[in-house]
Amino acid sequence: MLTPADTAFAERLAARLPVGRLRAPEPRHLEEPRGRYKGQGGLLALPETVEDVSTILQEANAARVPVVPYGGGTGLVSGQVAPELPAPLLVSLERMTVIRAVYPAENVMIAEAGAILSDIQAAAEAENRLFPLSLAAQGSCRIGGNLATNAGGVGVLRYGNTRDLCLGLEAVLPDGRIWNGLSRLRKDNTGYDLRNLLIGSEGTLGIITAATLKLSPRPAATGTAMLVVSSPRAALDLLSLARDQVGDGVSAFELINRQGLDFLTETMPDLRQPWAEPPDWSVLIELGLSGGTDPTEALEELFAKAFERGLLSDGVIARSEAQRDALWSVREHLPEGNRRIGSISSHDISLPLSCVPEFIERGNAAIADIGAFRVNCFGHLGDGNLHYNIFPPKWGDRRDHEGERPRINRTVHDLVSEYGGSVSAEHGIGRLKVDELELYGDPVKLAVMRQIKIALDPNGIMNPGAVLRAGNG
Amino acid sequence: MLTPADTAFAERLAARLPVGRLRAPEPRHLEEPRGRYKGQGGLLALPETVEDVSTILQEANAARVPVVPYGGGTGLVSGQVAPELPAPLLVSLERMTVIRAVYPAENVMIAEAGAILSDIQAAAEAENRLFPLSLAAQGSCRIGGNLATNAGGVGVLRYGNTRDLCLGLEAVLPDGRIWNGLSRLRKDNTGYDLRNLLIGSEGTLGIITAATLKLSPRPAATGTAMLVVSSPRAALDLLSLARDQVGDGVSAFELINRQGLDFLTETMPDLRQPWAEPPDWSVLIELGLSGGTDPTEALEELFAKAFERGLLSDGVIARSEAQRDALWSVREHLPEGNRRIGSISSHDISLPLSCVPEFIERGNAAIADIGAFRVNCFGHLGDGNLHYNIFPPKWGDRRDHEGERPRINRTVHDLVSEYGGSVSAEHGIGRLKVDELELYGDPVKLAVMRQIKIALDPNGIMNPGAVLRAGNG
Repeated sequence: MLTPADTAFAERLAARLPVGRLRAPEPRHLEEPRGRYKGQGGLLALPETVEDVSTILQEANAARVPVVPYGGGTGLVSGQVAPELPAPLLVSLERMTVIRAVYPAENVMIAEAGAILSDIQAAAEAENRLFPLSLAAQGSCRIGGNLATNAGGVGVLRYGNTRDLCLGLEAVLPDGRIWNGLSRLRKDNTGYDLRNLLIGSEGTLGIITAATLKLSPRPAATGTAMLVVSSPRAALDLLSLARDQVGDGVSAFELINRQGLDFLTETMPDLRQPWAEPPDWSVLIELGLSGGTDPTEALEELFAKAFERGLLSDGVIARSEAQRDALWSVREHLPEGNRRIGSISSHDISLPLSCVPEFIERGNAAIADIGAFRVNCFGHLGDGNLHYNIFPPKWGDRRDHEGERPRINRTVHDLVSEYGGSVSAEHGIGRLKVDELELYGDPVKLAVMRQIKIALDPNGIMNPGAVLRAGNG
Repeated sequence: MLTPADTAFAERLAARLPVGRLRAPEPRHLEEPRGRYKGQGGLLALPETVEDVSTILQEANAARVPVVPYGGGTGLVSGQVAPELPAPLLVSLERMTVIRAVYPAENVMIAEAGAILSDIQAAAEAENRLFPLSLAAQGSCRIGGNLATNAGGVGVLRYGNTRDLCLGLEAVLPDGRIWNGLSRLRKDNTGYDLRNLLIGSEGTLGIITAATLKLSPRPAATGTAMLVVSSPRAALDLLSLARDQVGDGVSAFELINRQGLDFLTETMPDLRQPWAEPPDWSVLIELGLSGGTDPTEALEELFAKAFERGLLSDGVIARSEAQRDALWSVREHLPEGNRRIGSISSHDISLPLSCVPEFIERGNAAIADIGAFRVNCFGHLGDGNLHYNIFPPKWGDRRDHEGERPRINRTVHDLVSEYGGSVSAEHGIGRLKVDELELYGDPVKLAVMRQIKIALDPNGIMNPGAVLRAGNG
């Protein structure tokens, strides 16, 4: 049985912490970007050291107070906002932002969990290195949250998900024990992979306080193009062709649908788009190449070959940094366009790569059967990761279609499941997708997850209700 | 309390399995390559399906019979040979060797756990793809064992360890439940990372029966050279220079010490070596480049630049496939040379990359303080992974130095630990390094490992005594 973070608890905890570590949560701590969940009062802890975090969890565990770890607050599945608990203890890492060390010769950085992603990127760049995690929220999300949710983004194709960018962790377990796992090693086969168990566990197994991050050499030169393809299948063939040509040099491959461009025209008419008439399907491709090969020439060669094979009909290759930024700006504004239109339902799904074209065809047909909705299907095609979002008919309002959301959700996710896909490719489960995990997840995996949760957090204090249903022993 | 796999158990189990799945172990199942451990009789199960494995574990779990999973038998830390248990049930995956599917367009293969690594490599090559796991035992090790031990090898620098090459697993848990996790997805954030928990757990948490493997495009062209460097530090500087030039294109970077070449001269005089006088330090470098850049030219450019900076003094760039094979043959015979000489003590260690040169210097000095031993220090320098092996003085015999082994071991591993290194970089813990794990491992991590072990295998039947001390609740 959990108990609220009440005044008595706050006083007990305050007595064990340096002055100024506790306060009431601000409104921003009780909101989430989709506006679906609202948090409640409770208590906010602002630890400054791993020992602070340890003390906080010791006390919370002893008192059975629910703990909600808080990073940048940008998570899209409400892992950070808990509406239904006894007033929780929010633990925000926002004061633990130190970049503890950079080892450029090793391509390694050690950063505290509260460091903002763009600050980490900048610290790497200052040493002529790349930290390749890159996503829309990078100006405000924190690396601890990126790790807790195994964030994706546009660099996954080449550099992997967040878990692939981490060599080691410092973390506090639910009972306050500190695991010192800030390894700088590339190879270490000494026991179970605790690092990957914590990464992606969304704050339900402990609190990450610092991480050893893997940096990369910066590509010597980058080339960017937006290419008009005849279909998603042609886009996949183009990706194959590009990889045959430059191997791992393809660092981004983003699918764009006409609907997304139309939303930009409608909501952000001043945003420069490369086409007079928006094409049905286009891709944003980026090549990051090391010395020797000129990426612009490589893109020209790719264009010529793909044109010959009928995969594409038009294209823009960036000739300057400004043109490159303009192309990326179109891609990066797609989510904002979606927000301004207002989706009925949005789906962060992944599929086996070769199933993507058929899924889009069948998905669009199934949605059309439900109603005259608009579908914006875009995303990280190279990873098989689509953002498949459903909008009301033109001039319609999402609020008139709330009732259809469950059916839409079920239709999309049933189809994803039929192809062996995932109903959460990069956003995680949080509280938004607990039902989906129970419906579509492997039952044995779920049972094992519960066994692990009970073993490491027997009192169930860590982010209760996220990932696993609360109290579900 | 564990009980032996006796006749009564064998009869009960046989009644639930198709005919021919049980027999007595052969001698090869009771040996391990280092010859330090000897297994005992017991019973051998040869499952052909995941259902067979499930039945086997259900019965073993019900009867508290210890289970030792068996792959290719090539493990170097005796994870596969258990001398001290009640007669165990060996479960060999050698009949589950089917490559279930290859999806070249997705760079994905699904293989059963008993498939031999070189067969998997060949199946990938048949589709013009690369499965980049590459190690000395590839002709006999099995992919299930590679996964269970998170095997390393010479391709880690570019492609990662075995865990980085796996997208999903099918596995049987200690109580016989089957986890269907053969995902073909690149991104899937639906719950805890069970895949990485099983990978590297050395058969102590379940039996992997099949895996989805990540393939890569084959490099368009490969270049290989052996270069004489002035020191390990110069070798590291050369690696940096190479990466500045060709980025991820550096696919192998192996450090070679004169001692290893001298061993080859002594034990395999017919093996062709590239030098009249073996250099103190050399590196084998391989570049795998995509279209556009000629790797031989890139190596020539690298040589010129590195020569200018005083990093190297001589070198051989392979001009033909035969020359390439000859260079690799030198590297690949180093372990056999070691075996023929007979080491007193061998150490599979890793270090933060920039600490490697200092470690070698201090390590060699510390060993010299103990006695006039010969040290062969070689390995995967790009990963910070050294094989640091100690041999008797010339004309000496390892058997005369057994008594010094503990002191040598302790000296090397203390120094590794001082630098934040690992006492098992790629071989795992098995039974050989349980003491080391307890001595050098993070105590909180060890405690969490035990909690997870108890949660998933409460009867302690799975490979007891490997990784964690048996019966250590």
